[in-house]
Amino acid sequence: MDINADLGESFGAYRYGHDSELMPLITSANIACGFHAGDPATMRRAVQSAVEHGVAIGAHVGLPDRLGFGRREMAITADDAYDYSLYQLAALDGFVRAAGARMRHVKPHGALYMMAAERPELAAAISAAVRDFDSSLALYALPGSHADLAAVDAGLTVLREFFADRPYEGTDVVMFGWSYEQLGGAQGAAERVSRMLADPAFDTVQTVCVHSDTVDAPALARSVRGALRAGGVSVEARPALAR
Amino acid sequence: MDINADLGESFGAYRYGHDSELMPLITSANIACGFHAGDPATMRRAVQSAVEHGVAIGAHVGLPDRLGFGRREMAITADDAYDYSLYQLAALDGFVRAAGARMRHVKPHGALYMMAAERPELAAAISAAVRDFDSSLALYALPGSHADLAAVDAGLTVLREFFADRPYEGTDVVMFGWSYEQLGGAQGAAERVSRMLADPAFDTVQTVCVHSDTVDAPALARSVRGALRAGGVSVEARPALAR
Amino acid sequence: MDINADLGESFGAYRYGHDSELMPLITSANIACGFHAGDPATMRRAVQSAVEHGVAIGAHVGLPDRLGFGRREMAITADDAYDYSLYQLAALDGFVRAAGARMRHVKPHGALYMMAAERPELAAAISAAVRDFDSSLALYALPGSHADLAAVDAGLTVLREFFADRPYEGTDVVMFGWSYEQLGGAQGAAERVSRMLADPAFDTVQTVCVHSDTVDAPALARSVRGALRAGGVSVEARPALAR
Amino acid sequence: MDINADLGESFGAYRYGHDSELMPLITSANIACGFHAGDPATMRRAVQSAVEHGVAIGAHVGLPDRLGFGRREMAITADDAYDYSLYQLAALDGFVRAAGARMRHVKPHGALYMMAAERPELAAAISAAVRDFDSSLALYALPGSHADLAAVDAGLTVLREFFADRPYEGTDVVMFGWSYEQLGGAQGAAERVSRMLADPAFDTVQTVCVHSDTVDAPALARSVRGALRAGGVSVEARPALAR
Repeated sequence: MDINADLGESFGAYRYGHDSELMPLITSANIACGFHAGDPATMRRAVQSAVEHGVAIGAHVGLPDRLGFGRREMAITADDAYDYSLYQLAALDGFVRAAGARMRHVKPHGALYMMAAERPELAAAISAAVRDFDSSLALYALPGSHADLAAVDAGLTVLREFFADRPYEGTDVVMFGWSYEQLGGAQGAAERVSRMLADPAFDTVQTVCVHSDTVDAPALARSVRGALRAGGVSVEARPALAR
Repeated sequence: MDINADLGESFGAYRYGHDSELMPLITSANIACGFHAGDPATMRRAVQSAVEHGVAIGAHVGLPDRLGFGRREMAITADDAYDYSLYQLAALDGFVRAAGARMRHVKPHGALYMMAAERPELAAAISAAVRDFDSSLALYALPGSHADLAAVDAGLTVLREFFADRPYEGTDVVMFGWSYEQLGGAQGAAERVSRMLADPAFDTVQTVCVHSDTVDAPALARSVRGALRAGGVSVEARPALAR
Repeated sequence: MDINADLGESFGAYRYGHDSELMPLITSANIACGFHAGDPATMRRAVQSAVEHGVAIGAHVGLPDRLGFGRREMAITADDAYDYSLYQLAALDGFVRAAGARMRHVKPHGALYMMAAERPELAAAISAAVRDFDSSLALYALPGSHADLAAVDAGLTVLREFFADRPYEGTDVVMFGWSYEQLGGAQGAAERVSRMLADPAFDTVQTVCVHSDTVDAPALARSVRGALRAGGVSVEARPALAR
Repeated sequence: MDINADLGESFGAYRYGHDSELMPLITSANIACGFHAGDPATMRRAVQSAVEHGVAIGAHVGLPDRLGFGRREMAITADDAYDYSLYQLAALDGFVRAAGARMRHVKPHGALYMMAAERPELAAAISAAVRDFDSSLALYALPGSHADLAAVDAGLTVLREFFADRPYEGTDVVMFGWSYEQLGGAQGAAERVSRMLADPAFDTVQTVCVHSDTVDAPALARSVRGALRAGGVSVEARPALAR
């Protein structure tokens, strides 16, 4: 099982998230690319840190809405989704190549993630951008969503995701409107992961997400690692397609 | 001799420059990358048009100052110059790769071009960004400037540039404070190019620039082509290093 | 009857719209405020031109989406709508005060205009921002829309709007998905205005809009003036509340 | 003596500075206006907090460089300085008016502050923007700088500033290149203020600045208050011109 975190969300003078503490605890880093968060210097540092920790690197592509941190829906077209995704993942790839490494995956952020899950044409556009750039890249997706289906259609490796720090109703993640109390802290995350491991409905899950801006994210990530080990699951980055 | 033009400077609803008319007349296109001008959709379209016309593609990297169109100096550090250049050229490369083509060169824009010409540490940083991404890329530079020297030091192919639509005082281009009257229109550009061809001081020049936003840029580009042919010089994109 | 136009939409090096030609033909100018379009220099110039032409000045407040020109919906909250509107109208007011004039009205732009028409909580928030700044300002609104109702509730003067350069289906304006052929040019605009004057369903209309970026907007504005005169309607800016 | 702090520098999801802890300790708040930092919601909250604490409110106007937090020089013109200042101070005034309060002063931020201190034409442009908006507003300035002189020329009240959390060499503040060790913490700030009070060369000082992002800014502000009291100086916001 892969543990992924959204990182590299600082911007200029603004610090954000628990990047340095999380990096030793995760196997994949989704690095913001300068649209909803991040900037060139932050991207360079996040890539360098990921390389040093042997963490797989992905582009966390978002909506062009820095003020809203990419968290509010925008009425973009499929062409926009293609263009914005390609621009951002390629920009990150520059820092990855300069660091002598290889990018491994792409994950849409926030509102774009949910829009890709729900709208086939946006999902197809994002998958097309990834494929047209490098068809060996993996795409992170909500299991069974349109993002998942479109990535399979595009011939991409899909890494299906479970959210340790979001409430679930059955197999449905609650992305918005939850409270920190509902999350139950590190203990709650561990229990959520344990239940997921035990539930056949989650058989397709290959990666567990911890958000870098969740309160006490590092403790939560450690707790998730514990739950995975307790469930007999090894923690490692799942490789993308051989190239 | 190569003829290059700065293109792809539209942004959202804003149209800019004579891109479609210039494309058949040039051998190299410097495409804006979303910092001083351009946006993902404009980049995709400009790359596609360049591919269709067999025009060599380069990244026109600029300062993060859309309001000033990258034309006013900013007190950036060498690290900034590295990070901004790498981000932008990589982002453009995404569209080039998706189009099945290869990027051939990089050219700093506006204030960044002049800052790279005059300040060794910025010149070195930009060259390092190009080299770290792909050492077979060429860099456009003002002949004899620090940008030229730094690119040579970094082992990059340099394409030394003459400006058909800027006044010259001896061998020094006048970048700012000129008037359209001084330019002399298409006729003036042709004469300027003819003088350049005849003057041994310009022996290192390998490419002639026409700005897409100069008044009557297409007529000017045709006139430059005529002057080059009249001077017995073939018009073609000079290849970068073999890869 | 008032004739209003959306103006001041240039940005940095980008020119946009037929501002100088339209200014003598209209009675009210809606000036972009730097979110979806416009910038401080453009705002200063547009205000100055409006003052010189005796044209009533309004703030054309939009979504913070310059790349999309404020034309695509964003999932903003009512608080956002309040804050964005207040920020923008106050910023424009700075240039109006410095020019020794008084701002007369506010009009939401593009997607925000339609969102305010359809969603009561956004409409109320925008009206509250206008009222809290200066309750003597008028608000432009689609007749009978939630924007109209909320402005009345807030005690604001409402100027109800007809669009000369948009198709109508009955009394419903078609804001999106129309073609220039449908508009019928200056002749079509005149006919549309004449029909509106003759139709009691449009009795509440107090202002006719001409977009500055419509093809041949000046000819269209002249044609609208002709239609109004032919209908026996005087063309003048309707004053807002006495202060 | 007035104690002022730069506040309201958060942006979207990014928190910045010790605003809530500083507000009870200061007499004047300089609130960022959305160019170098801040956003409409942050401005509204900062204004509201200042009103609740009886703190005088000013516009902290900066360069349009969010990525650089307004800390790096840009080659702007005097017209730019006028337009940017007027836009920002008017935008803040919107929130101040909506809160039923009155803005009291303007202070340029970071690089713009130093550029205004050193370049007469920029200083004059900023003072003109303040005067054209409301000639009863005060302007904060480095004593004896061109900003100070220009504000006097424009007929504005000037509040001359001492920096508690910056090193001094004689009467010259060291704005850049200092280290936190040099500052000497809260104790160092108190000593610096005490020396200033005792030195006739600082007789013109009317306000002491504490930056909200200095390490342990609240302790430092308390220490400055103590030093002022120990020096027999009352702490209160100096009023601007009567209106």
